[in-house]
Amino acid sequence: MSFVRFDRYVDRHAQSFAERLQMLCRMPSVAARGTGMRATAEAVEQMMQRVGIGTRSFRIGNGYPIIYGECGSGPHAFLIYGHYDVQPVGHLTDWSVGPFAAGIIDGKLYARGAANSKGDLLARLAAVEAYQKSFGKLPVCFRFIVEGEDGLGSPSLYRFTAEHADLLQAEGCLWDEGYRDTKERPVISLGFKGITFLELRAHGARSDLHSKWGTIVPNPAWRLVQALSTITSPKGVITIDGFSSHLAPVTEDDMKALRAIELDEAGLKREFRIASWVRSMKGEALIKEHIFGPTCTICGIQTGHTEAGPKTVLPSTAMARLDFRLVPDLTPELVVRLLREHLNVRGFRDIEVIELGSAPLAKSSATSRVALAATESALEVYGLPPIVYPMDPSSGPVGAVCGASKPSAPVASFGISYAGSNPHGPDEHIRLDDFLQSIKFIGRVIHRLGEGKTRSSGGARTSGIHEKVTH
Amino acid sequence: MSFVRFDRYVDRHAQSFAERLQMLCRMPSVAARGTGMRATAEAVEQMMQRVGIGTRSFRIGNGYPIIYGECGSGPHAFLIYGHYDVQPVGHLTDWSVGPFAAGIIDGKLYARGAANSKGDLLARLAAVEAYQKSFGKLPVCFRFIVEGEDGLGSPSLYRFTAEHADLLQAEGCLWDEGYRDTKERPVISLGFKGITFLELRAHGARSDLHSKWGTIVPNPAWRLVQALSTITSPKGVITIDGFSSHLAPVTEDDMKALRAIELDEAGLKREFRIASWVRSMKGEALIKEHIFGPTCTICGIQTGHTEAGPKTVLPSTAMARLDFRLVPDLTPELVVRLLREHLNVRGFRDIEVIELGSAPLAKSSATSRVALAATESALEVYGLPPIVYPMDPSSGPVGAVCGASKPSAPVASFGISYAGSNPHGPDEHIRLDDFLQSIKFIGRVIHRLGEGKTRSSGGARTSGIHEKVTH
Repeated sequence: MSFVRFDRYVDRHAQSFAERLQMLCRMPSVAARGTGMRATAEAVEQMMQRVGIGTRSFRIGNGYPIIYGECGSGPHAFLIYGHYDVQPVGHLTDWSVGPFAAGIIDGKLYARGAANSKGDLLARLAAVEAYQKSFGKLPVCFRFIVEGEDGLGSPSLYRFTAEHADLLQAEGCLWDEGYRDTKERPVISLGFKGITFLELRAHGARSDLHSKWGTIVPNPAWRLVQALSTITSPKGVITIDGFSSHLAPVTEDDMKALRAIELDEAGLKREFRIASWVRSMKGEALIKEHIFGPTCTICGIQTGHTEAGPKTVLPSTAMARLDFRLVPDLTPELVVRLLREHLNVRGFRDIEVIELGSAPLAKSSATSRVALAATESALEVYGLPPIVYPMDPSSGPVGAVCGASKPSAPVASFGISYAGSNPHGPDEHIRLDDFLQSIKFIGRVIHRLGEGKTRSSGGARTSGIHEKVTH
Repeated sequence: MSFVRFDRYVDRHAQSFAERLQMLCRMPSVAARGTGMRATAEAVEQMMQRVGIGTRSFRIGNGYPIIYGECGSGPHAFLIYGHYDVQPVGHLTDWSVGPFAAGIIDGKLYARGAANSKGDLLARLAAVEAYQKSFGKLPVCFRFIVEGEDGLGSPSLYRFTAEHADLLQAEGCLWDEGYRDTKERPVISLGFKGITFLELRAHGARSDLHSKWGTIVPNPAWRLVQALSTITSPKGVITIDGFSSHLAPVTEDDMKALRAIELDEAGLKREFRIASWVRSMKGEALIKEHIFGPTCTICGIQTGHTEAGPKTVLPSTAMARLDFRLVPDLTPELVVRLLREHLNVRGFRDIEVIELGSAPLAKSSATSRVALAATESALEVYGLPPIVYPMDPSSGPVGAVCGASKPSAPVASFGISYAGSNPHGPDEHIRLDDFLQSIKFIGRVIHRLGEGKTRSSGGARTSGIHEKVTH
């Protein structure tokens, strides 16, 4: 099938697609702050309707809207996951440009959320639009799930997937994490690590005191530091009692997939401006650690006076946030239990452990229809064999979304960003060329998903949503 | 000598004195922020002139003004130290009332700086006023040194004392730290611990990263935690190599003084809302630790994302502020050197150690004129024998101010606050009754300083400042 018309449509509408993305990126939908969430959800729903997707908006309790949408038809149904919320911006002074100005400089669009992942969502919508304009109709049924709580651990989405399994029946799922690596190779992931995000708290006197009391009044900051220091070794190995015994050996298949992956060590070190990796690892050991290693990351610590200017104070509380990235066979429940026991036996019963959010890991086959459609299309569009991660080092509610189908729907994840996009950090940005190329890539993926034989276990049907086609 | 007229004057002017203090406390002179510093310095200078003190304002470089003032005459000269800057307010939400509203509720004046130590300064000025109104003239010469950088480690004051030793010649010095303990006994200190206030910094990648990189990118927060955990034991003992060998044994005289001190353990525990003291100490061991124990207090730690809402980030930097309180024979230089070496031998050369401010310890005799005037007047006014600390657990630029005289001028320190005043913390406040009683107490101190024989080593003279008497 020729994609000449498709590609021409994308090129002719390049500016329009970029402007829609700018418009969406100017909406400050920081879920953690609750700013502009409803307006952004409405804008996304309108954009979906504009390309012919029939939508329904779900609100779970006080959560931010989940937009469910369907388009296309046929015996094959596939899920497309996206989210319209963005990460907090951090310190404004770290940004070269306003995080919601969405300015384009030298072909790059700078904005919080441009890379993670409003650009991905709009690339999928643009591909649906271009496909219909070029070929008339979609060859499969797509079921969009667009949430607004990615940054919050997706609490609404978990309830939604439990209550609306009927809307999630599918043969596979396209996720929105992925980028081009430092050698421009597209990265496709066939799974995600699990996560459990915890807050540890220590308490001292009823309020901050003059630090002269440091002689005899317990200091919760010291307490927290001493407790934390038992959780990892100075070399960065997790030392929680019993933790390592739950790590499954990496399978032969996964080791084979790992060996096909080449991490651009020098490029990444330059990008991050670091002299060496943890424990001076390199080569296969490094990539194995990155993809199949569990983590315990201190994401933040706050205690006492840390603003400008000296203030000698004995803090009344101390708080640390930790995230654990989970690999086979770790589960959130297991990690929380092991940590609690580890602290207890060391006399740190007083340290509170609060679970802020968790997601199980997800890992699927390299020969599923979504996996093959993605890897074959990548080679065609980018002219480079993609890097295929058996499991992405990041995490998300993949297990909940894909698990609604029985057997669980396999996942393939890819995205529009590149190695320098810095999602979650300051100056997050994308290259517009990547954005456009990704639309063309997704067009091929759509086509391949419609090709081939019906899976015997298929039978997914479209639900009876009235399609408000506005375009 | 009868103080009936003096006390009557204080009582009749109680409201006026309180209003002056409210006015001064409404000026947000946070040195660490630089807010309202010049206006506050000018207000203080006017208040000094109003009670007949001839003033000169000194500005060292870009520092905040030091106001030097003289009043009275005679062969005896004494220094009176004060400061007009206040500590940062911390989290506004921790305060029940605005920190600069200076409202009076149930006879208590709430304001940042009310206890530490605008109230002390105005009590001294009020006593000078009342003394002159009651007895005609002061029996001694007072040399006021009022700085605006207490919260910054007094950099200007150190240069001032080095350059203007002639203005600081005195037989003794009255300092402004002191309070009534939980049993309402006035606390008088005859010395202060030294201090060195440090910032430790660890560095990772060029900017905060997505925490999936926690697998292989060094985390400065872990680095800092691991380094800090070697500095004290889980029981709160300082474990820096060589540190303990520099601690001088407590002398027999000091042990005798310690035994006269009774810490209201139950009252303080209630006040602070803590279940037990560090290492479950009590009695003599507790008071000995509080007065002669060195400290290493984590005053603050900041790294990564710590605001509301989850954000899984790998921090690019981590920072901790530590203050060490120094007892004989520790010096700031020694502690910084030992810490640096301690970190180096453990492989923590990458941890930066930055000295933010330091002061040597000061310790003087219990039989000096200032010490006797203070202790005898306390018994007279409060009807209770004062608690005399051979060394106060807090710190200040005492050594620099008193050291200008040869031999060094002995110090006696007392103040207007009480055990619940919470200086440095939220809801700092004083009881107005304490404020008024302190004025009466200082009147007696003034009188006693003028009594008795001229010290053979005396000879302090007033300098030739033109006294702008406006009151």
